[in-house]
Amino acid sequence: MSLPARGVFGERILALADEIARHSEAGDNLTCTYLTPAHHAAASLLLHWMRQAGLKAEIDATANVVGRLPSVMPGAKTLIIGSHYDTVRNAGKYDGRLGILTGLVVLEHLIRVGAELPFNVELIAFSEEEGVRFATPFIGSHAIVGKFDTAILERTDRAGLHLFEVMMEAGLDLKKIPSLARDPASLLGYLEVHIEQGPVLLREDLPVGIVSAIAGARRQVLTVTGQTGHAGTVPMLGRHDAAAAAAEIVLFVEQRCSRGDTLVGTVGQLNVPQGAINTIPGRCELSLDIRAGDNATRDSAIDDITAECAAIAARRGVTIESREVMNSAAAPCAPRLQLVFADAVKRAGYRAHTLLSGAGHDAMVFNGVCDIGMLFVRCGNGGISHSPLETVAASDADAGARVLLDALMHVG
Amino acid sequence: MSLPARGVFGERILALADEIARHSEAGDNLTCTYLTPAHHAAASLLLHWMRQAGLKAEIDATANVVGRLPSVMPGAKTLIIGSHYDTVRNAGKYDGRLGILTGLVVLEHLIRVGAELPFNVELIAFSEEEGVRFATPFIGSHAIVGKFDTAILERTDRAGLHLFEVMMEAGLDLKKIPSLARDPASLLGYLEVHIEQGPVLLREDLPVGIVSAIAGARRQVLTVTGQTGHAGTVPMLGRHDAAAAAAEIVLFVEQRCSRGDTLVGTVGQLNVPQGAINTIPGRCELSLDIRAGDNATRDSAIDDITAECAAIAARRGVTIESREVMNSAAAPCAPRLQLVFADAVKRAGYRAHTLLSGAGHDAMVFNGVCDIGMLFVRCGNGGISHSPLETVAASDADAGARVLLDALMHVG
Repeated sequence: MSLPARGVFGERILALADEIARHSEAGDNLTCTYLTPAHHAAASLLLHWMRQAGLKAEIDATANVVGRLPSVMPGAKTLIIGSHYDTVRNAGKYDGRLGILTGLVVLEHLIRVGAELPFNVELIAFSEEEGVRFATPFIGSHAIVGKFDTAILERTDRAGLHLFEVMMEAGLDLKKIPSLARDPASLLGYLEVHIEQGPVLLREDLPVGIVSAIAGARRQVLTVTGQTGHAGTVPMLGRHDAAAAAAEIVLFVEQRCSRGDTLVGTVGQLNVPQGAINTIPGRCELSLDIRAGDNATRDSAIDDITAECAAIAARRGVTIESREVMNSAAAPCAPRLQLVFADAVKRAGYRAHTLLSGAGHDAMVFNGVCDIGMLFVRCGNGGISHSPLETVAASDADAGARVLLDALMHVG
Repeated sequence: MSLPARGVFGERILALADEIARHSEAGDNLTCTYLTPAHHAAASLLLHWMRQAGLKAEIDATANVVGRLPSVMPGAKTLIIGSHYDTVRNAGKYDGRLGILTGLVVLEHLIRVGAELPFNVELIAFSEEEGVRFATPFIGSHAIVGKFDTAILERTDRAGLHLFEVMMEAGLDLKKIPSLARDPASLLGYLEVHIEQGPVLLREDLPVGIVSAIAGARRQVLTVTGQTGHAGTVPMLGRHDAAAAAAEIVLFVEQRCSRGDTLVGTVGQLNVPQGAINTIPGRCELSLDIRAGDNATRDSAIDDITAECAAIAARRGVTIESREVMNSAAAPCAPRLQLVFADAVKRAGYRAHTLLSGAGHDAMVFNGVCDIGMLFVRCGNGGISHSPLETVAASDADAGARVLLDALMHVG
């Protein structure tokens, strides 16, 4: 099959990412959360681009933008290529959008050259993955796999608007959501291209990498309760300092999670509520986020952290309560799809490097529904993401598109 | 000299403390900050009680309530007995007020029995020590020693009112403030009775103790700046986690300050601003409060903490900035006044236990102006203060008054 000149895909992807990033609900940065005017504008633009590319496209009842390229084979299965077009607040331009636009330019090319695939392709730009506006992620992809939970319709945003109100106001037909669920038996698989959002491919000096699994995260919120007291009058030995106990937990998490290959552990929130400079902290709140490529590695770390918390509590005369706020299983990528990507990467002239995805992605939602495969594209600027500093080189975006195109030629 | 029956002083002090605590600017707790209606009411009540006791009393230009008992000796020096009647928010009933009321019942007794002292006594109920409303402490005592800083008049409270406006509105004559300064040569000394606000006398099983010195505090605000990042995608080894660096500082402060007899160190504030459960902290703010009975011990701890911060910063690739927000010298109590109190304590039948005051008091302001002496009264309830849970036993308040009375008989 003829290929466009090297660099053409990449330049186009970056230009499209710039164009769609103009739609933002914030004046000075990119913020595009579910069903805001900026989000509607982004959806309309994607719909326009998909139709221009020759896809049969429409916006579904959860605001996913879905473009279809039917197979020439009757009764063919469907391959979904997806990623999301919503963003976090003060976002980068490529998280989510890179995968949609890579799919778009590749399908556009296939249509232009008149390629005939033995499977249908659906390019789905998911409407919601980040969970920012209604504090619940994966709204779009959940609908596609039939896991849309109607309980979330009662959730409210910061302005107090309910999700169901906002969806109805947007003209979405809530009754149609159940019918969006794809039949797993009809699916060939799910592929997602995504910016790495980390520094691994930078260090490996590679434009792309094959994802082995998406780490499952367990998250807890911990509250340490000690005994408040006057900073000047309570001798060191008689103290039950909640912040000092929390500090021990922070350092134990760091040390314990440095002992596993794919294991990472983070205390992202740490706070002495109403702390005063001259008062011994009676309370300290902190969060835990532990991830690994397999559930056993992660759970073993959680067990050790729990045991250490108990030891710290006993030694310091404080109490430590924990509440689990997330427990998502690791999602392994299908070996056959990893192989398809790895072969395509090698044919493109690169070393096939396999890495774990520490971040969650729409692909996780398809775990157990159909085979999933993910390709990471190198993240510039030290691997910074969820930030305006997020960058992708045009040549790396180009490599991602060429590898995806090649993979589509071999996945059937 | 005749003494009232055991317990009479103590019961009276607690009853008066209950009565004055009825005046509060908060509906459900005791809060009495500078020049609020509650504060005016408390001042009026103290003025009334002082006059009833037979003192020549008035409210001065900074709202101190000053009662004089002149000596029979012409040209006699003056002994000041003082403490403060303002409170923190959600305060206990005895912090500050106990010392005023102990002085009141003792002077009342001296007047009743017709005692003749070879020195004048001034009982001063300081209007402001806590620094709550205008974020500047010791307004009342500073005026008495001639250290009232007119720059503070421009400060504003939470409602945006300037201190000078509030003082003028209260009918205070700002022009008279300089004339409130006592001539150091005229002063025999300064005595203060105060609730301990800590657990030492509880542990020693003693109703009163003699203060050796008031610790000088140095306070710093530290900001750790690391590198924010995605909790799932940045490997443990490449992290520059600001909270983990802060945790090391917290534990070093605790460990280093456990190595000195009178040394205490506290991290009262600890916060990852806008911390997210899935984000590596790029910034962490914390406070330091280091105190000791002598400046050298305290400064040596600060030096070691500063050196450790530099080592942590270098090892972790973070920056740690510190800003000193307080540096007050330790105020030693005069040996002769410690001896006067110790002898009185022994005559009252108790062991003379000497202890450091970790908290600041009006007495500090008299350091370098005249000899200072302080007597601590046992704090109940584990030593809790700055809290509605603060308690004093009537029998302990009684012991404090009897010791003060005896000390007045011997201090001349």
